[in-house]
Amino acid sequence: MLPVAISSIILSGKGATMGLFSKDIKTMNDLFLHMLDDIYYAEQQIAKSLPDMMKKVSHPELRTGFETHLRETEIHVKRLEKVFEKLDVTANAVDCPAIDGILKEAKKIAGEVDDKSVLDAALIAAAQAVEYYEITRYGTLIVWAKDLGRDDVVGLLNTTLEEEKAADKKLTSIAEAKVNRRAA
Amino acid sequence: MLPVAISSIILSGKGATMGLFSKDIKTMNDLFLHMLDDIYYAEQQIAKSLPDMMKKVSHPELRTGFETHLRETEIHVKRLEKVFEKLDVTANAVDCPAIDGILKEAKKIAGEVDDKSVLDAALIAAAQAVEYYEITRYGTLIVWAKDLGRDDVVGLLNTTLEEEKAADKKLTSIAEAKVNRRAA
Repeated sequence: MLPVAISSIILSGKGATMGLFSKDIKTMNDLFLHMLDDIYYAEQQIAKSLPDMMKKVSHPELRTGFETHLRETEIHVKRLEKVFEKLDVTANAVDCPAIDGILKEAKKIAGEVDDKSVLDAALIAAAQAVEYYEITRYGTLIVWAKDLGRDDVVGLLNTTLEEEKAADKKLTSIAEAKVNRRAA
Repeated sequence: MLPVAISSIILSGKGATMGLFSKDIKTMNDLFLHMLDDIYYAEQQIAKSLPDMMKKVSHPELRTGFETHLRETEIHVKRLEKVFEKLDVTANAVDCPAIDGILKEAKKIAGEVDDKSVLDAALIAAAQAVEYYEITRYGTLIVWAKDLGRDDVVGLLNTTLEEEKAADKKLTSIAEAKVNRRAA
């Protein structure tokens, strides 16, 4: 509970008047900022995990896809920092058990597979679970930003959302066309 | 590692010839069965979590949506048991850190919000993260089932996938139409 509470204090600017152990997300704006902190953490964790996934991949097109997505993910982090700047709040990554769980499962399954083609298929599925998590989060953030009248950040969030969707489509096409067929 | 290893032994029928601590997912079929075990566990955990989420919801349409989805989730569990039956393997839920993390985050965020409308918005976002996880997993399972020539289970998996997509659309329409606007 502590990181959320501290984050809310910093972001809401209410300082010491807000109790550390009270329910600190009061408004839609607080919730929006909390979700931004959450995806900011998630993007950083994904950027840390992708190099390890890349090392395990055999299919050349898949490796290129992972490399491209690592560069995109680094840009997504910077783009979120622009969002925080426009909102005039401090970027403040908070723990995100969801992405931690998704990445933990990816690592776990990759450790259970030896055959290169089967491993490629497992890594595609793991990467798609990551993409889908990001797609749902950015989708939610865009709806909330619009409702809060923060159209100035909708464009930035939408650019990333479209890149996540494109990455997912690329993974699907590789999965359907080559990897699974070879592995089966 | 142990549950995966045990699961693979049971499912692959290779018995004692397969080492408990070796890499036990050898083929696309092993990977497919492992992913089925994973979503079987996930559906059960979702069914356990939905009643608690339902208690916290204020918006009547949202509560009805959660009630409907709880009934659907219970059917999804039974439908997966039919898939296992058709494949002639034992249903065997394995730990799934991804869904555990997604549900943990849902619980955490719900505990941080007091205002009813903001809590509804947070619960919708949490439910959509769950839906998206299921959508990506069933999507992957369908591609793999087709590649493995198991067209006899594709229909069952696809029925669930379509229900998950419909549940997500319903959540989006509630979020866009009412909850957020009221909360903002």
